[in-house]
Amino acid sequence: MDLMALYFEDLKPGRVFKAGPITVDPTQASEFARQYDPQPFHLKEAAGAASVFGSLVISGWQTAAYSMRMLADSELAGIANGLVGLQIDKLMWHQPVQPGDVLSTEFDVMSRKQSRSKPGFGVVQLAWRTFNQRGELVMSLENAIWVAVRGEGQGPSHG
Amino acid sequence: MDLMALYFEDLKPGRVFKAGPITVDPTQASEFARQYDPQPFHLKEAAGAASVFGSLVISGWQTAAYSMRMLADSELAGIANGLVGLQIDKLMWHQPVQPGDVLSTEFDVMSRKQSRSKPGFGVVQLAWRTFNQRGELVMSLENAIWVAVRGEGQGPSHG
Repeated sequence: MDLMALYFEDLKPGRVFKAGPITVDPTQASEFARQYDPQPFHLKEAAGAASVFGSLVISGWQTAAYSMRMLADSELAGIANGLVGLQIDKLMWHQPVQPGDVLSTEFDVMSRKQSRSKPGFGVVQLAWRTFNQRGELVMSLENAIWVAVRGEGQGPSHG
Repeated sequence: MDLMALYFEDLKPGRVFKAGPITVDPTQASEFARQYDPQPFHLKEAAGAASVFGSLVISGWQTAAYSMRMLADSELAGIANGLVGLQIDKLMWHQPVQPGDVLSTEFDVMSRKQSRSKPGFGVVQLAWRTFNQRGELVMSLENAIWVAVRGEGQGPSHG
Protein backbone atom coordinates (compact mmCIF):
# COMPACT_ATOMS: atom_id res chain seq x y z
CA MET A 1 0.00 0.00 0.00
CA ASP A 2 1.44 3.32 -1.08
CA LEU A 3 0.96 5.73 1.82
CA MET A 4 0.88 8.65 -0.64
CA ALA A 5 -1.94 7.19 -2.72
CA LEU A 6 -4.95 9.44 -3.16
CA TYR A 7 -8.49 8.15 -3.20
CA PHE A 8 -11.90 9.67 -3.83
CA GLU A 9 -12.23 10.45 -0.13
CA ASP A 10 -9.04 12.58 -0.23
CA LEU A 11 -10.22 14.87 -3.01
CA LYS A 12 -12.44 17.24 -1.09
CA PRO A 13 -14.00 20.12 -3.02
CA GLY A 14 -11.93 23.26 -2.46
CA ARG A 15 -8.62 21.42 -2.22
CA VAL A 16 -5.98 23.00 -4.50
CA PHE A 17 -2.87 21.30 -5.94
CA LYS A 18 -0.07 23.44 -7.36
CA ALA A 19 2.35 22.17 -9.97
CA GLY A 20 5.24 23.25 -12.13
CA PRO A 21 7.03 25.35 -13.16
CA ILE A 22 8.11 24.00 -16.52
CA THR A 23 9.93 25.97 -19.22
CA VAL A 24 8.75 25.81 -22.84
CA ASP A 25 11.86 24.51 -24.55
CA PRO A 26 12.28 26.03 -28.05
CA THR A 27 13.49 22.72 -29.52
CA GLN A 28 10.54 20.81 -28.04
CA ALA A 29 8.22 23.54 -29.34
CA SER A 30 9.42 23.20 -32.92
CA GLU A 31 9.38 19.38 -32.68
CA PHE A 32 5.81 19.41 -31.40
CA ALA A 33 4.75 21.83 -34.13
CA ARG A 34 6.39 19.77 -36.88
CA GLN A 35 4.77 16.54 -35.67
CA TYR A 36 1.34 17.64 -34.55
CA ASP A 37 0.47 21.21 -35.60
CA PRO A 38 2.64 22.32 -38.55
CA GLN A 39 0.97 25.68 -39.11
CA PRO A 40 3.40 28.43 -40.19
CA PHE A 41 2.77 30.59 -37.08
CA HIS A 42 3.97 27.67 -34.90
CA LEU A 43 7.09 27.07 -37.01
CA LYS A 44 8.54 30.36 -38.25
CA GLU A 45 9.16 33.72 -36.58
CA ALA A 46 8.14 35.69 -39.68
CA ALA A 47 4.89 33.75 -40.14
CA GLY A 48 4.11 34.25 -36.43
CA ALA A 49 4.73 37.99 -36.71
CA ALA A 50 2.35 38.19 -39.68
CA SER A 51 -0.38 36.11 -37.95
CA VAL A 52 -3.25 37.11 -35.67
CA PHE A 53 -0.88 36.31 -32.77
CA GLY A 54 1.80 38.81 -33.79
CA SER A 55 4.62 36.43 -32.85
CA LEU A 56 5.72 32.81 -33.03
CA VAL A 57 3.46 30.91 -30.62
CA ILE A 58 3.31 27.27 -29.58
CA SER A 59 0.40 24.98 -30.40
CA GLY A 60 -2.43 25.23 -27.90
CA TRP A 61 -2.29 21.43 -27.75
CA GLN A 62 1.29 21.65 -26.53
CA THR A 63 0.21 24.01 -23.74
CA ALA A 64 -2.33 21.33 -22.79
CA ALA A 65 0.37 18.64 -23.01
CA TYR A 66 2.74 20.64 -20.76
CA SER A 67 -0.12 21.10 -18.29
CA MET A 68 -0.68 17.33 -18.34
CA ARG A 69 3.03 16.87 -17.60
CA MET A 70 2.77 19.17 -14.59
CA LEU A 71 -0.29 17.22 -13.42
CA ALA A 72 1.61 13.93 -13.82
CA ASP A 73 4.49 15.36 -11.74
CA SER A 74 2.16 16.74 -9.03
CA GLU A 75 0.81 15.21 -5.86
CA LEU A 76 -2.26 14.24 -7.95
CA ALA A 77 -0.13 11.60 -9.67
CA GLY A 78 -0.78 9.66 -6.47
CA ILE A 79 -4.36 8.94 -7.50
CA ALA A 80 -4.51 5.21 -6.91
CA ASN A 81 -5.80 4.16 -10.34
CA GLY A 82 -3.78 6.76 -12.30
CA LEU A 83 -4.96 9.93 -13.97
CA VAL A 84 -7.77 8.67 -16.15
CA GLY A 85 -9.68 11.45 -17.87
CA LEU A 86 -13.36 11.09 -18.68
CA GLN A 87 -14.17 14.42 -20.24
CA ILE A 88 -12.76 17.91 -20.81
CA ASP A 89 -14.96 21.00 -21.07
CA LYS A 90 -14.39 24.72 -21.39
CA LEU A 91 -10.83 24.31 -22.64
CA MET A 92 -9.79 27.85 -23.55
CA TRP A 93 -6.52 29.45 -24.58
CA HIS A 94 -6.51 32.93 -23.07
CA GLN A 95 -3.06 34.16 -24.08
CA PRO A 96 -0.53 32.92 -26.64
CA VAL A 97 2.43 30.97 -25.24
CA GLN A 98 5.89 31.54 -26.70
CA PRO A 99 9.02 29.39 -26.61
CA GLY A 100 10.94 30.30 -23.45
CA ASP A 101 7.83 31.01 -21.39
CA VAL A 102 7.67 29.42 -17.95
CA LEU A 103 4.37 27.73 -17.15
CA SER A 104 2.83 26.69 -13.85
CA THR A 105 -0.55 25.20 -13.01
CA GLU A 106 -3.20 24.98 -10.33
CA PHE A 107 -5.62 22.09 -10.10
CA ASP A 108 -8.71 22.81 -8.00
CA VAL A 109 -11.15 20.14 -6.86
CA MET A 110 -14.52 21.58 -7.90
CA SER A 111 -16.95 18.76 -7.05
CA ARG A 112 -17.24 14.98 -6.84
CA LYS A 113 -19.74 12.19 -6.77
CA GLN A 114 -19.61 8.43 -6.48
CA SER A 115 -20.35 6.46 -9.62
CA ARG A 116 -23.50 4.37 -9.93
CA SER A 117 -22.38 2.61 -13.08
CA LYS A 118 -18.90 1.72 -11.82
CA PRO A 119 -18.98 0.63 -8.16
CA GLY A 120 -15.78 1.43 -6.27
CA PHE A 121 -15.14 4.54 -8.35
CA GLY A 122 -16.17 8.16 -8.29
CA VAL A 123 -15.99 11.09 -10.67
CA VAL A 124 -14.04 14.14 -9.53
CA GLN A 125 -14.27 17.46 -11.36
CA LEU A 126 -10.96 19.34 -11.51
CA ALA A 127 -10.39 22.88 -12.80
CA TRP A 128 -6.97 23.30 -14.43
CA ARG A 129 -5.49 26.78 -14.69
CA THR A 130 -2.16 27.32 -16.44
CA PHE A 131 -0.22 30.58 -15.98
CA ASN A 132 2.86 32.10 -17.59
CA GLN A 133 5.83 33.71 -15.82
CA ARG A 134 3.93 37.04 -15.61
CA GLY A 135 1.05 35.38 -13.76
CA GLU A 136 -1.22 35.69 -16.78
CA LEU A 137 -3.76 32.92 -17.31
CA VAL A 138 -2.84 31.21 -20.58
CA MET A 139 -5.15 28.16 -20.51
CA SER A 140 -7.99 26.78 -18.44
CA LEU A 141 -10.25 23.77 -18.60
CA GLU A 142 -12.57 21.57 -16.57
CA ASN A 143 -11.70 17.89 -16.33
CA ALA A 144 -13.76 14.98 -15.03
CA ILE A 145 -11.56 12.10 -13.87
CA TRP A 146 -12.18 8.58 -12.51
CA VAL A 147 -10.94 8.08 -8.96
CA ALA A 148 -11.08 4.85 -6.95
CA VAL A 149 -12.93 4.90 -3.64
CA ARG A 150 -10.78 3.80 -0.71
CA GLY A 151 -13.61 2.03 0.98
CA GLU A 152 -13.13 -0.44 3.82
CA GLY A 153 -9.93 -2.29 4.43
CA GLN A 154 -7.92 -0.60 1.68
CA GLY A 155 -6.76 2.64 3.24
CA PRO A 156 -3.56 3.24 5.18
CA SER A 157 -5.60 3.66 8.35
CA HIS A 158 -6.66 0.02 8.05
CA GLY A 159 -3.26 -1.28 6.95
CA MET B 1 -5.03 35.40 -53.20
CA ASP B 2 -5.03 31.69 -52.54
CA LEU B 3 -7.91 30.18 -54.51
CA MET B 4 -8.12 27.34 -51.96
CA ALA B 5 -8.58 29.69 -49.01
CA LEU B 6 -11.67 29.04 -46.89
CA TYR B 7 -13.71 31.81 -45.34
CA PHE B 8 -16.68 31.97 -43.00
CA GLU B 9 -19.04 31.91 -45.98
CA ASP B 10 -17.60 28.54 -47.13
CA LEU B 11 -18.22 26.72 -43.86
CA LYS B 12 -21.89 25.92 -44.16
CA PRO B 13 -23.48 23.85 -41.38
CA GLY B 14 -23.64 20.22 -42.46
CA ARG B 15 -20.40 20.32 -44.48
CA VAL B 16 -18.08 17.43 -43.55
CA PHE B 17 -14.30 17.30 -43.99
CA LYS B 18 -12.52 13.94 -43.80
CA ALA B 19 -8.87 13.61 -42.85
CA GLY B 20 -6.17 11.06 -42.21
CA PRO B 21 -5.31 8.26 -41.92
CA ILE B 22 -2.28 8.53 -39.66
CA THR B 23 -0.54 5.62 -37.93
CA VAL B 24 0.37 5.83 -34.24
CA ASP B 25 4.10 5.32 -34.39
CA PRO B 26 5.38 3.35 -31.35
CA THR B 27 8.52 5.52 -31.06
CA GLN B 28 6.49 8.74 -31.19
CA ALA B 29 4.12 7.26 -28.62
CA SER B 30 6.87 6.55 -26.13
CA GLU B 31 8.49 9.96 -26.78
CA PHE B 32 5.19 11.74 -26.20
CA ALA B 33 4.59 9.76 -23.01
CA ARG B 34 8.08 10.46 -21.65
CA GLN B 35 7.78 14.20 -22.32
CA TYR B 36 4.16 14.96 -21.55
CA ASP B 37 2.37 12.10 -19.79
CA PRO B 38 4.86 9.75 -18.11
CA GLN B 39 2.34 7.49 -16.40
CA PRO B 40 3.38 3.83 -16.27
CA PHE B 41 0.44 2.62 -18.41
CA HIS B 42 1.67 4.89 -21.24
CA LEU B 43 5.28 3.71 -20.94
CA LYS B 44 5.43 0.00 -20.14
CA GLU B 45 3.57 -3.02 -21.47
CA ALA B 46 3.36 -4.67 -18.05
CA ALA B 47 2.02 -1.54 -16.34
CA GLY B 48 -0.53 -1.14 -19.13
CA ALA B 49 -1.67 -4.73 -18.72
CA ALA B 50 -2.15 -4.19 -14.97
CA SER B 51 -4.03 -0.89 -15.44
CA VAL B 52 -7.71 -0.14 -15.92
CA PHE B 53 -6.97 -0.16 -19.68
CA GLY B 54 -5.63 -3.74 -19.78
CA SER B 55 -2.86 -2.83 -22.22
CA LEU B 56 -0.28 -0.18 -23.04
CA VAL B 57 -2.25 2.83 -24.31
CA ILE B 58 -1.17 6.22 -25.61
CA SER B 59 -1.89 9.46 -23.79
CA GLY B 60 -5.32 10.88 -24.59
CA TRP B 61 -3.53 14.16 -25.27
CA GLN B 62 -1.54 12.48 -28.01
CA THR B 63 -4.77 11.26 -29.62
CA ALA B 64 -5.88 14.91 -29.58
CA ALA B 65 -2.51 15.99 -31.02
CA TYR B 66 -2.72 13.42 -33.85
CA SER B 67 -6.26 14.65 -34.58
CA MET B 68 -4.91 18.20 -34.75
CA ARG B 69 -2.28 16.99 -37.21
CA MET B 70 -4.97 15.47 -39.42
CA LEU B 71 -6.91 18.75 -39.23
CA ALA B 72 -3.79 20.71 -40.19
CA ASP B 73 -3.28 18.39 -43.20
CA SER B 74 -6.94 18.58 -44.27
CA GLU B 75 -8.77 20.96 -46.57
CA LEU B 76 -9.61 22.95 -43.42
CA ALA B 77 -5.97 24.08 -43.27
CA GLY B 78 -7.07 26.49 -46.00
CA ILE B 79 -8.94 28.63 -43.48
CA ALA B 80 -7.62 32.05 -44.40
CA ASN B 81 -6.46 33.14 -40.93
CA GLY B 82 -5.21 29.69 -39.85
CA LEU B 83 -6.76 27.23 -37.44
CA VAL B 84 -7.25 29.35 -34.34
CA GLY B 85 -9.14 27.60 -31.59
CA LEU B 86 -11.34 29.51 -29.19
CA GLN B 87 -12.75 26.77 -27.04
CA ILE B 88 -13.04 22.98 -26.77
CA ASP B 89 -15.98 21.24 -25.11
CA LYS B 90 -17.14 17.67 -24.64
CA LEU B 91 -13.66 16.24 -25.29
CA MET B 92 -14.11 12.53 -24.54
CA TRP B 93 -11.92 9.48 -25.01
CA HIS B 94 -14.25 6.62 -25.88
CA GLN B 95 -11.75 3.82 -26.51
CA PRO B 96 -8.06 3.41 -25.64
CA VAL B 97 -5.60 3.93 -28.50
CA GLN B 98 -2.58 1.65 -28.80
CA PRO B 99 0.72 2.09 -30.63
CA GLY B 100 0.23 0.81 -34.19
CA ASP B 101 -3.41 1.88 -34.41
CA VAL B 102 -4.42 3.79 -37.54
CA LEU B 103 -6.50 6.90 -36.88
CA SER B 104 -8.74 8.94 -39.14
CA THR B 105 -10.99 11.90 -38.46
CA GLU B 106 -14.14 13.66 -39.54
CA PHE B 107 -14.73 17.35 -38.95
CA ASP B 108 -18.37 18.42 -39.22
CA VAL B 109 -19.50 22.04 -39.40
CA MET B 110 -22.20 22.21 -36.71
CA SER B 111 -23.11 25.91 -36.64
CA ARG B 112 -21.67 29.38 -37.18
CA LYS B 113 -22.29 33.00 -36.35
CA GLN B 114 -20.60 36.29 -37.15
CA SER B 115 -18.74 37.95 -34.32
CA ARG B 116 -20.01 41.18 -32.80
CA SER B 117 -16.85 41.82 -30.83
CA LYS B 118 -14.42 41.16 -33.71
CA PRO B 119 -15.72 42.61 -36.99
CA GLY B 120 -14.60 40.68 -40.05
CA PHE B 121 -14.57 37.38 -38.16
CA GLY B 122 -17.05 34.70 -37.28
CA VAL B 123 -17.13 31.74 -34.91
CA VAL B 124 -17.63 28.30 -36.45
CA GLN B 125 -18.46 25.24 -34.32
CA LEU B 126 -16.78 22.05 -35.53
CA ALA B 127 -17.37 18.52 -34.24
CA TRP B 128 -14.24 16.36 -34.40
CA ARG B 129 -14.61 12.58 -34.44
CA THR B 130 -11.54 10.35 -34.43
CA PHE B 131 -11.82 6.66 -35.34
CA ASN B 132 -9.44 3.70 -35.23
CA GLN B 133 -8.82 1.14 -37.99
CA ARG B 134 -11.85 -0.87 -36.83
CA GLY B 135 -14.13 2.15 -37.29
CA GLU B 136 -14.54 2.53 -33.53
CA LEU B 137 -14.92 6.08 -32.22
CA VAL B 138 -11.87 6.76 -30.00
CA MET B 139 -12.22 10.50 -29.36
CA SER B 140 -14.71 13.28 -29.99
CA LEU B 141 -14.92 16.96 -29.15
CA GLU B 142 -16.60 20.21 -30.08
CA ASN B 143 -14.37 23.07 -31.16
CA ALA B 144 -15.19 26.73 -31.70
CA ILE B 145 -12.76 28.40 -34.11
CA TRP B 146 -12.24 31.94 -35.45
CA VAL B 147 -12.77 32.26 -39.19
CA ALA B 148 -12.33 35.41 -41.27
CA VAL B 149 -15.32 36.65 -43.26
CA ARG B 150 -14.60 36.99 -46.99
CA GLY B 151 -16.72 40.09 -47.30
CA GLU B 152 -16.52 42.41 -50.26
CA GLY B 153 -13.48 42.69 -52.48
CA GLN B 154 -11.49 39.93 -50.77
CA GLY B 155 -12.81 36.75 -52.36
CA PRO B 156 -11.49 35.02 -55.47
CA SER B 157 -14.66 36.07 -57.31
CA HIS B 158 -13.58 39.69 -56.91
CA GLY B 159 -9.88 39.14 -57.61
